[in-house]
Amino acid sequence: MTLRFVTGNENKFEEARKIGESMGIEVEHEDLKYEEIQADTLEEVVKPSVQEVYEIIEEPCFVEDAGLFINCINGFPGPYSSYVFKTLGNEGILKLMKDKSDRTAEFRSVIGFCDSDENLEIFRGRVKGEILKEERGKEGFGYDPIFSPKGIENKTFAEMSVEKKNSFSHRSSAIEKFVKWYKRNKKAEVRD
Amino acid sequence: MTLRFVTGNENKFEEARKIGESMGIEVEHEDLKYEEIQADTLEEVVKPSVQEVYEIIEEPCFVEDAGLFINCINGFPGPYSSYVFKTLGNEGILKLMKDKSDRTAEFRSVIGFCDSDENLEIFRGRVKGEILKEERGKEGFGYDPIFSPKGIENKTFAEMSVEKKNSFSHRSSAIEKFVKWYKRNKKAEVRD
Repeated sequence: MTLRFVTGNENKFEEARKIGESMGIEVEHEDLKYEEIQADTLEEVVKPSVQEVYEIIEEPCFVEDAGLFINCINGFPGPYSSYVFKTLGNEGILKLMKDKSDRTAEFRSVIGFCDSDENLEIFRGRVKGEILKEERGKEGFGYDPIFSPKGIENKTFAEMSVEKKNSFSHRSSAIEKFVKWYKRNKKAEVRD
Repeated sequence: MTLRFVTGNENKFEEARKIGESMGIEVEHEDLKYEEIQADTLEEVVKPSVQEVYEIIEEPCFVEDAGLFINCINGFPGPYSSYVFKTLGNEGILKLMKDKSDRTAEFRSVIGFCDSDENLEIFRGRVKGEILKEERGKEGFGYDPIFSPKGIENKTFAEMSVEKKNSFSHRSSAIEKFVKWYKRNKKAEVRD
């Protein structure tokens, strides 16, 4: 059983591949650039993207978009997490958070799956946590060094192995929901 | 002579209307929501937008996208100026700029005009200036209270009348180029 993950982000693919493996699913990489629209929610970004990608490759496939939503700054950087990381980096986020007492945040992941012109499914995952006051750890990517998930002894995502992060991350939670749904609904279908 | 400006932003339309008036052009407001893609430059955002809008209204029309590009933070907030203003506001920008000695920035405006499936024209305007250390003035909108254009006696855009701002703003510069081009190339054509 194979699922096609369309992404230009190697790190994301590697995470998804390992999660799939642990669930008995092969995740295949389709390295295709596609457009994302500007929107306030990940769902709004993902829907047209997966439809566009499906029209191009004409095979069942999924895309994923993720973001860090920080409560005291109105959900910033949210759907623009990737651009903000490129321009401001973790240093910029820490600067914005200086003197803020509410440091709660969450990572969200939204998966869009499409296997026909009419059929689009959305799966969500999230993990709550806190923004620390400095960067810690070298694993993972992006905001991982400043994000400490709830209930995990004050460690950041970047202080964990990929396997550990995958055991409860936003992305793994969305992928797990997707795979369970897929096994239940699609496994029996004959595919070309 | 009438030009159709497709925008959901009343302030932008009002600026454009006054600039057009001063050049003997009527700028008409088409209040239509359209999608913008995520991209690193305004040009990349504007091109598919005006094509999409033209396909919908089937009339010659233009869209405009603008952004504030701050040098010491890699051009942030750039094409995402509107989202960043909603979430971080001027307060957030000032926080990011704390202790920064290079405070140079520029406002950019890009206009896309479309009057057939093949014909898309792009016009650019920019104004250089500096990010102040505090907000000043009540005129204008968005980042106007923290941006002081070069050579204008340390005043912010928000300390000027719309007419004064229009006399040298990024948006007026793009609109002027557009109108001049239009008068030269399109005036003689018969329109439906």
